[in-house]
Amino acid sequence: MDKKLGTRYAERVEGFRKYVQKNDIATALLMTDVKGDRSLRPSEQKLHKDYYLRIVEQSRDGIIIRGAKAHASWAPCSNELIILPCRAMKEEDKEYAIACAVPPNTDGIIMVQPERPVNFKEPNSWLDYPISSGDYSPDAVVVFNNVFVPNERVFMKEEWQLSGDLVHMFANFHRLMANIGKYAEIELLVGAAILAAEYNGLEKVSHIRNKIAWLMYYAEGLGALSQLACINCLFETETKLAYPNPMYTNMVKFMYADNFHQALKYVQDIAGGLLSTAPSSEDFLNSETGPLLEKYLRGKSEIPTEKRFKIMKLIADLSNVHKQVGAIHAEGSLQSQLLSIYALGDFEKYKAAAKRAGGIKDDKLHPVFSQLPDYPIR
Amino acid sequence: MDKKLGTRYAERVEGFRKYVQKNDIATALLMTDVKGDRSLRPSEQKLHKDYYLRIVEQSRDGIIIRGAKAHASWAPCSNELIILPCRAMKEEDKEYAIACAVPPNTDGIIMVQPERPVNFKEPNSWLDYPISSGDYSPDAVVVFNNVFVPNERVFMKEEWQLSGDLVHMFANFHRLMANIGKYAEIELLVGAAILAAEYNGLEKVSHIRNKIAWLMYYAEGLGALSQLACINCLFETETKLAYPNPMYTNMVKFMYADNFHQALKYVQDIAGGLLSTAPSSEDFLNSETGPLLEKYLRGKSEIPTEKRFKIMKLIADLSNVHKQVGAIHAEGSLQSQLLSIYALGDFEKYKAAAKRAGGIKDDKLHPVFSQLPDYPIR
Amino acid sequence: MDKKLGTRYAERVEGFRKYVQKNDIATALLMTDVKGDRSLRPSEQKLHKDYYLRIVEQSRDGIIIRGAKAHASWAPCSNELIILPCRAMKEEDKEYAIACAVPPNTDGIIMVQPERPVNFKEPNSWLDYPISSGDYSPDAVVVFNNVFVPNERVFMKEEWQLSGDLVHMFANFHRLMANIGKYAEIELLVGAAILAAEYNGLEKVSHIRNKIAWLMYYAEGLGALSQLACINCLFETETKLAYPNPMYTNMVKFMYADNFHQALKYVQDIAGGLLSTAPSSEDFLNSETGPLLEKYLRGKSEIPTEKRFKIMKLIADLSNVHKQVGAIHAEGSLQSQLLSIYALGDFEKYKAAAKRAGGIKDDKLHPVFSQLPDYPIR
Amino acid sequence: MDKKLGTRYAERVEGFRKYVQKNDIATALLMTDVKGDRSLRPSEQKLHKDYYLRIVEQSRDGIIIRGAKAHASWAPCSNELIILPCRAMKEEDKEYAIACAVPPNTDGIIMVQPERPVNFKEPNSWLDYPISSGDYSPDAVVVFNNVFVPNERVFMKEEWQLSGDLVHMFANFHRLMANIGKYAEIELLVGAAILAAEYNGLEKVSHIRNKIAWLMYYAEGLGALSQLACINCLFETETKLAYPNPMYTNMVKFMYADNFHQALKYVQDIAGGLLSTAPSSEDFLNSETGPLLEKYLRGKSEIPTEKRFKIMKLIADLSNVHKQVGAIHAEGSLQSQLLSIYALGDFEKYKAAAKRAGGIKDDKLHPVFSQLPDYPIR
Repeated sequence: MDKKLGTRYAERVEGFRKYVQKNDIATALLMTDVKGDRSLRPSEQKLHKDYYLRIVEQSRDGIIIRGAKAHASWAPCSNELIILPCRAMKEEDKEYAIACAVPPNTDGIIMVQPERPVNFKEPNSWLDYPISSGDYSPDAVVVFNNVFVPNERVFMKEEWQLSGDLVHMFANFHRLMANIGKYAEIELLVGAAILAAEYNGLEKVSHIRNKIAWLMYYAEGLGALSQLACINCLFETETKLAYPNPMYTNMVKFMYADNFHQALKYVQDIAGGLLSTAPSSEDFLNSETGPLLEKYLRGKSEIPTEKRFKIMKLIADLSNVHKQVGAIHAEGSLQSQLLSIYALGDFEKYKAAAKRAGGIKDDKLHPVFSQLPDYPIR
Repeated sequence: MDKKLGTRYAERVEGFRKYVQKNDIATALLMTDVKGDRSLRPSEQKLHKDYYLRIVEQSRDGIIIRGAKAHASWAPCSNELIILPCRAMKEEDKEYAIACAVPPNTDGIIMVQPERPVNFKEPNSWLDYPISSGDYSPDAVVVFNNVFVPNERVFMKEEWQLSGDLVHMFANFHRLMANIGKYAEIELLVGAAILAAEYNGLEKVSHIRNKIAWLMYYAEGLGALSQLACINCLFETETKLAYPNPMYTNMVKFMYADNFHQALKYVQDIAGGLLSTAPSSEDFLNSETGPLLEKYLRGKSEIPTEKRFKIMKLIADLSNVHKQVGAIHAEGSLQSQLLSIYALGDFEKYKAAAKRAGGIKDDKLHPVFSQLPDYPIR
Repeated sequence: MDKKLGTRYAERVEGFRKYVQKNDIATALLMTDVKGDRSLRPSEQKLHKDYYLRIVEQSRDGIIIRGAKAHASWAPCSNELIILPCRAMKEEDKEYAIACAVPPNTDGIIMVQPERPVNFKEPNSWLDYPISSGDYSPDAVVVFNNVFVPNERVFMKEEWQLSGDLVHMFANFHRLMANIGKYAEIELLVGAAILAAEYNGLEKVSHIRNKIAWLMYYAEGLGALSQLACINCLFETETKLAYPNPMYTNMVKFMYADNFHQALKYVQDIAGGLLSTAPSSEDFLNSETGPLLEKYLRGKSEIPTEKRFKIMKLIADLSNVHKQVGAIHAEGSLQSQLLSIYALGDFEKYKAAAKRAGGIKDDKLHPVFSQLPDYPIR
Repeated sequence: MDKKLGTRYAERVEGFRKYVQKNDIATALLMTDVKGDRSLRPSEQKLHKDYYLRIVEQSRDGIIIRGAKAHASWAPCSNELIILPCRAMKEEDKEYAIACAVPPNTDGIIMVQPERPVNFKEPNSWLDYPISSGDYSPDAVVVFNNVFVPNERVFMKEEWQLSGDLVHMFANFHRLMANIGKYAEIELLVGAAILAAEYNGLEKVSHIRNKIAWLMYYAEGLGALSQLACINCLFETETKLAYPNPMYTNMVKFMYADNFHQALKYVQDIAGGLLSTAPSSEDFLNSETGPLLEKYLRGKSEIPTEKRFKIMKLIADLSNVHKQVGAIHAEGSLQSQLLSIYALGDFEKYKAAAKRAGGIKDDKLHPVFSQLPDYPIR
């Protein structure tokens, strides 16, 4: 894909890569523009031109960019912001076709972080919020208010034709990397369901076993598709770069997102109403209420109340809105996975299989099916 | 059902009812015991005997009770706690068959509230948490540590045979009342989905319209079943008390709980990643970052950014864990709805229909199907 | 809607209605055109102009029509064919806007029936195919090859503006009538599931009870929505004609179609593999194999093998392709229900609910929500 | 597992295997007993003792067996019937623990085939039933009415302890082999959906593309799990026999069965009502009706009507009850997959993951998680 890019910018990209490696630089990737009216392309937006990051001025030394990137995970803690376009472009959008690297303390950059869901400075916040007190990615909105980028840090400029390929290749890696992590997340969700069932004394109940089995199927399905995306990797034609199998990476993301809410529903169903009404750790640690809660909130007699309390808090915290929205939208929405799967599908193979079975003769020969005999024997 | 209860306690219940009405008393209903090991009945629990509220002593003047009730909505703000058993009992559980009324400031009562999800005293908390800053029900764990209840406030005592009927009759009302409220909740969720689609400029996208149509189907389905539960109400044999149709009340609760997570998934899918990464109101009201967010976080050009911000915060807040767990567990879990539907089903009618169609002759005559001719004509 | 139609044709329609009543005439309704390329409107079709039934010639006495109607249930057994358009039309489609009545033996009418799924003349076909041997609607393709229709039988001609309203009003009745019948169909499917569970000795298994409870919920949900479509009926403005509530009629059709395949899956899961591999009635009635099958294919010892055999055949026959396709496509596909629900939804009510909860002030006052106080107390 | 079996019978099994190979013998595997009341074990059945195949007599030369096996695919066309038990046994069931080989023409064997769904001798049956006219497996009920089996053909006898292992090991191979075939089946179903959309002129419609993408996800998911079952195969401890990964083989069967009905629903939705109402090939080949059907049943103008006709018949035939029941019950029902997945799940791994995240300290060290640092940093 990137012949042109290669020819013009390969040296800069390579140089930047070495600099990052050598200096142990923390990078953050900024992709998703704020987008404005989502039914309009970058150049069609009405109120102003800056809903997608764009080049507002060019000089001999570099470019000046303006716009804002959303969902910029880890940007506030990074040494370098890597900027990529977030969609395929047409010629009229060419000022929006921009890839470059900028240090976060450059003039004109303003970052606005979302509110941290939990006050992690409170000493026992991790007891009540075991996930969100520690596992917090600061997903800032990053505003570029006329920011200068010198030429040596510009990797793509106005090459609108390359924009779509760049996005797809990025997605191949991103969807896989993110979803290998999702396996670990669902693994612990399955474990939480198993422990909640045990601690409640419900581990032999048929519908609960079925729900746990389904959760295992979900977890191991993510693991299986992630593995296959690596095993069946492809190679980029010109650079010989190995990349994850795009069909399987999209499938694993789709499987994750399409089933996450159902997984929460099952886990919550197993754990019970204490997920919502259990007192906080403060009351457990309090000398007056603590012993009462210890006595009354125990489930199975062999299990200390503290363990049951912790598993309730874990499941409640895994049910937070950030997990849900991340499941749906991180690395692209459900609809974008379906579009990708549709785009990647081997239509000719599927059609050849159906034509053979239906006795539909066709001139187009498919390499696999043209060698097979007629469907059963007629 | 309550002939015996009627004979022995009717006067007390009626007297209490008049006292509540006359004095505009706020009552809270305490039903769910903490339950301990859920595979064991009240009298089978191992570590101690108090996992279900029970009578520990009886005197001429009254009884002393011990135990704890969970999920006691509004108990901390009430004038009277009404106590009911939470399950059918066997004879060996008879000390657990107890219904009575106790003022919350009685000696020996300790209430532990769960942490309020939002600091509602912050001036703009409602902007960031429009639902949970206001719509908060303090669902305490209420501990009864040897609490004396005088005879005139005891409505049921050791009549373990009545316990199951009492629970089912309560459920009929509770499942309906709660779910009429759920219609209003889902109504606003549908509205939030419609507005999010409009504000994002996505209101003409086919898959989004389908999701909105499905949300309407869900909302109006809840409305329809709630209506029919009233229209097709039944009458208690002895007291002539009208009560909601149990089949439809269970169906509306099941429909609500079985689809709530999917509804959230659809609404989140429509609204986008800003649900998780939008800055807080503090940043919107800040003089430096406010204008930047106003510029960049607008969607459709005609819609002020503030409206889009508010709808994002509304949907994020509707996705909180308390809503999800409430959907599953309030008024009984998914499994308890299925068991109720199974118990209420008119098996003889269904079987008669299948036997007629399958040509299975039977001696048992069903009032409807025995009058019909043979299935089609043979 | 039909003022114009009323003015011009009311007399003819009324005359035809009386003739039908007086003479006990069997009518068949022909609506769905064969449609050709479904992405093109009637007047846009490429290969020929007759994919939608149209007027090819007009004279003083009547019109000549050409085209073909598909899925014409009962047409071969009727005395009169009632023709309606199947979609909204634009002006350029006006030759396709046609409603009239034609006797089936008129010159130029050719009917082609689909193959009858079962040879119902075989003496025991009903044992093996209890449903399709008797419950068979001959859904012909009816070709109109230049058929003359005299003026007094023409009810609409070129009034393309009325076409959409006619279709929607027809759908209101049709979707309800068809789906009241679906309640009876699912009622017997539930009965078949209950009996299969009993006859197999599986009636106490938890996952099977859950599936039966879900089937009851499905059946009674169809019943509930059908009832409400009648109870909450609407009245056509000009004629005062009562008609089923369109939202509920579309919802009942959607609920039926969206869940039918899952219902089959559950029933098949309960019944077991004999659905597919049970011998035919011929082998049961055979003197050599009969006693062996009687011995070996019994399930629960109390139940004669014959009953189990009949319930297997019933369920297998209910799983035929015609039932499945009828569920999806009769009275409009899943997508057409979703579009109807979307079109019928009370957007302003939903939006007002969300705006109130989200604190979004608006000028448009909604009659219900404008009278309510602010959402909780702020 | 089969040390004992190995010691006692290995020679016979090996001898039989060589005989099969050398003589190109067609074998049929008979596993599922007719089972009677499914809530009772083999030895608990009431009416008679023969619901599971059993040894009724033993002599020096061999054994006499009685009982019946159901769903015996290809038995009527085989040279040898291989008999296995179908479940784990207890000591009291030991007469039912039997594995052996018998030629189908042995005295006392009676086979009863189900009715062939299609009269395949009609010259054009394949046009109307492209799948079931050719792809027909004769799944007989095979009755063993006191059949003598000489010792050299008995591979297991009364070793009830081995029965469960034998069944599970068989299932590992069977579930995989069967489901690799299912990939090919769903591949052609996807192709049929694609062609139906094209031939109807609907290939650009958003909801149809989404359904096709989902079908691809389903097909490729089956392919992925089948691949991984081979790649991650395991080795039997004593014999070093490689066998498919049991977790993945169960997952692929579950994925296939759990989604098959939804796949049919989607394909039928895309194809349209002609699936049910299209005339038969006889009418297409008829000189009077043929040209009319050719004219009117064309979809997209570029596609000959014949192709559209064939794809409709293909999809209708793929929707037959045998495919549905095969999906659910062949190689074990949905519930048996869930039980297998539950049994195979690595509970300690899942629990260790949840304990780490929830801060629950435990003595049991898990090899992976005990090496990891605490969950995030606290």
